[in-house]
Amino acid sequence: MNDFEHTYAVIMAGGGGTRLWPVSRKERPKQLLPLLDDKTLFQSTVTRLENFFPPERILVVTVTEQANEMQKQAPEIPTKNYLIEPAPRGTASVVGLAAAVLKKRDSDAMMAVLPSDHFIRNRDLFHYLIRTAFQVAKKGYLVTLGITPTYPSTAYGYIHQGEALDGEFKYPVYKVKQFIEKPDEKTAQKFLRTGDHSWNSGMFVWHVDNILKEIEKQMPQLSGTISKISASWDTPQREDILNSLWYDLKNETIDFGVMENAEMVAILPAGGLGWSDVGSWNSLIEVLLPDMNGNIAQNAQHLAIDTHNSLVYSNDYERLVVTIGVDDMVLVDTGDVLLVCKSDQAQKVRDVVQHLKKHRQEKYL
Amino acid sequence: MNDFEHTYAVIMAGGGGTRLWPVSRKERPKQLLPLLDDKTLFQSTVTRLENFFPPERILVVTVTEQANEMQKQAPEIPTKNYLIEPAPRGTASVVGLAAAVLKKRDSDAMMAVLPSDHFIRNRDLFHYLIRTAFQVAKKGYLVTLGITPTYPSTAYGYIHQGEALDGEFKYPVYKVKQFIEKPDEKTAQKFLRTGDHSWNSGMFVWHVDNILKEIEKQMPQLSGTISKISASWDTPQREDILNSLWYDLKNETIDFGVMENAEMVAILPAGGLGWSDVGSWNSLIEVLLPDMNGNIAQNAQHLAIDTHNSLVYSNDYERLVVTIGVDDMVLVDTGDVLLVCKSDQAQKVRDVVQHLKKHRQEKYL
Repeated sequence: MNDFEHTYAVIMAGGGGTRLWPVSRKERPKQLLPLLDDKTLFQSTVTRLENFFPPERILVVTVTEQANEMQKQAPEIPTKNYLIEPAPRGTASVVGLAAAVLKKRDSDAMMAVLPSDHFIRNRDLFHYLIRTAFQVAKKGYLVTLGITPTYPSTAYGYIHQGEALDGEFKYPVYKVKQFIEKPDEKTAQKFLRTGDHSWNSGMFVWHVDNILKEIEKQMPQLSGTISKISASWDTPQREDILNSLWYDLKNETIDFGVMENAEMVAILPAGGLGWSDVGSWNSLIEVLLPDMNGNIAQNAQHLAIDTHNSLVYSNDYERLVVTIGVDDMVLVDTGDVLLVCKSDQAQKVRDVVQHLKKHRQEKYL
Repeated sequence: MNDFEHTYAVIMAGGGGTRLWPVSRKERPKQLLPLLDDKTLFQSTVTRLENFFPPERILVVTVTEQANEMQKQAPEIPTKNYLIEPAPRGTASVVGLAAAVLKKRDSDAMMAVLPSDHFIRNRDLFHYLIRTAFQVAKKGYLVTLGITPTYPSTAYGYIHQGEALDGEFKYPVYKVKQFIEKPDEKTAQKFLRTGDHSWNSGMFVWHVDNILKEIEKQMPQLSGTISKISASWDTPQREDILNSLWYDLKNETIDFGVMENAEMVAILPAGGLGWSDVGSWNSLIEVLLPDMNGNIAQNAQHLAIDTHNSLVYSNDYERLVVTIGVDDMVLVDTGDVLLVCKSDQAQKVRDVVQHLKKHRQEKYL
C-alpha cells in the first residue's frame, strides 16, 4: 500500500435533499438516515472505505447543523477531520476547502471526493476503480468516475468521453470531452445509444495541487478565500476568518465551476458498480431487491394483492399496509405524513416540499 | 297523520360488514361508525325518520354485541323497542321477529323495514315514498322500494317490475315479476337498458298480518319459532325460549325466503333518492361530494397533485396525506392499517379480511 500512503477520502456530507421527503427531513437529511439497511447512508459510505482509507485519512465536509450527528455516527473519524462549513456553498467550495486544508497537512496529498449519500453495491469494484483513478491522477489528471447508463435517465448529469488515455492502466480510461447537465428524454435516449456517455457520479480523484491550480485559474475568488481560510484552519483565528469570508462565496458546483473547463480531465466509466444516487423514491426500487412481483416492503408489513413494481416504505412494522390493484406506486408511511406517488412522478416530491414551505407548514418539513 | 298512527319503522341493525375494513371492525361495524359525517350511519337512519315516526314507533333489531352501543347512540328510542337477537340469522328472521312482536303490541301495525347502514340524500322524497308505500300496503300488498339504476352495478340485487298497479296512488307503483340475485356485468347492462329493473334496496313496507301470513306459508319453521318467541317476548320466559329456539333457525333473507314467491308484491321504483348501500369504499365516492378533480378527503388533510377520482379516508386530521399521479384510488388510513386500493377492486377488501382471519391476525379484524 506504499503507493497509497498519501491518499485521502473526502466525504461531501452537507446536503439537504428534499426528494426523499417525508422520510428525509430538515432535521434529519437523507445521509443521516438508515434508508436501505440498519446503517445510515453516511455510515455505509464510511464503511465502504474500510481496508482502503484508514479513519485518520478520511475527511468529512459538512455543515454546522449536521456535524454533531455525523460525529456520533462515525466516531472512528478524528474530530479534526470534520471540516465544518458555516453554510452550504456548493461542491466547488467543499472541494476547495478540503484540498487546501489537506495540502497544509500533507503537501503530497491526493484525494478522492465522495458523496455521503450514494449507494454502491459492488464494493470490490469500487476499490479497484478508486485505486486505478489514483494511478491516473498521479499522471496529473483530474479524474472522475462515470457510471455506464443502463437506461435513459433524465435525473443525472452526463459526461461525454473522448479518446482513450495513453498509459499503463489496467482499466480503460478516457479523456473527458464535456460535462452535460441533466438532459431531456430524447437526448438521454441518444446518449444511451452512443455508448460514450456516462452518468456523472460526483466522484472525483486528484492530487490536491492539480485541483487547487485549476481553482486558482477558474475561480479566483474561491481560491483566494480558501487559501486565507486554510492558512488559519489549525489556528485560533479559524472561526473569525471563516465567518468573515465564507458567506461571500458563490454557490457553485465543482463540475461546472472547474471541471468543465479544466485541461487534463479523465474519466473511468464504471459498469456493474451497482451505483445509485438514492436521489428519489423511485431510485430505491432500483437499489433494493424486489420480490417476484417487483414489490419492495422496506420496514413495512405489506399484504400485496394484484400489486406490482411498488415500494412500501414505512417506519412502523406493526402497521399493516394492504395494497390492492396497485402498480408502479411508491408508498411512504411516516408518523405524520403519508405519501402515495406514481413511481415515474417521484421527482414531484420536491414540489410538495416547496408547497409546504410556501404555506408555512413547517412541522411537515 | 291519522292515516299513519299504526305505522312503525323497523331498523335492521345487526350486520357485520367487512367491505369497509379497515375502518369497519369486528368491534365497531359499519352502522356504528360516523362514516359520512359526524353522525353514525345508524344515527342518520334514525334521524331520517324524524317527523314521520315518533321514537316510540321505531324498533331496532340487532344482536347482543351491538345493542349497548346502539342504545347509547339513539337513547330516544325506548329500550323495549330494541329487539335483541342472540345471533344473526338473516333478514327473514329479523322481519319475522319484528312483525310478530309488533302484532302483539298493535294488532293493526304496519311496518317499514329499513336497513341501518344505508345513505339517502333526499329525505323529503324518502318520506313521500314511504307514505305512498304505506298506502299501497293498506291494499294488502307487500311493498318494496326499488332504486332506479344509474349504472350497470353488479354489486346489487335487482327487481324486475311488471304491469302498473291499479289504484289511486300519486306515484307509479308496479307489480313485482321477480327478485334477481347480483347479476354479471353483461346482464347488468341489459337490465339498465330495459328500464323495468330496479336495484333491490332492502326497504319494505307491509301490514304485519300480510308478512306473517306469507312467512307461515313459505317458512313454516320460522313461523312456528317466532310465534313462540313473540308470545313470550314481554314475559320473564323470553330469554329461555329465545335461546332454546333461535339457534336452530336457518340463515335466510326475506327477499328469497318469502318475497320471491309471495303473491301480492308491489314495487315503487325510486329515482333521485340519492341512495347508496355504502357497501364498499368505492360507493363512498358516489355518496360524498367530490371536488372538481373527483377527489374526496374525508377527515383527512389531503394535498392532491395530479390526482383524480380518488378517496382519502383518514381518522387523523393531523396527518398529511400527499398523493401524486394517483387516479381512481381509495386510500384508507387508520391507526394500525393503511389500505391503498384501486377503486374498481374495492370489493377485494373482503378477501383481505378472509386472509387475516385465516392467518389469525385477529388484531387487524
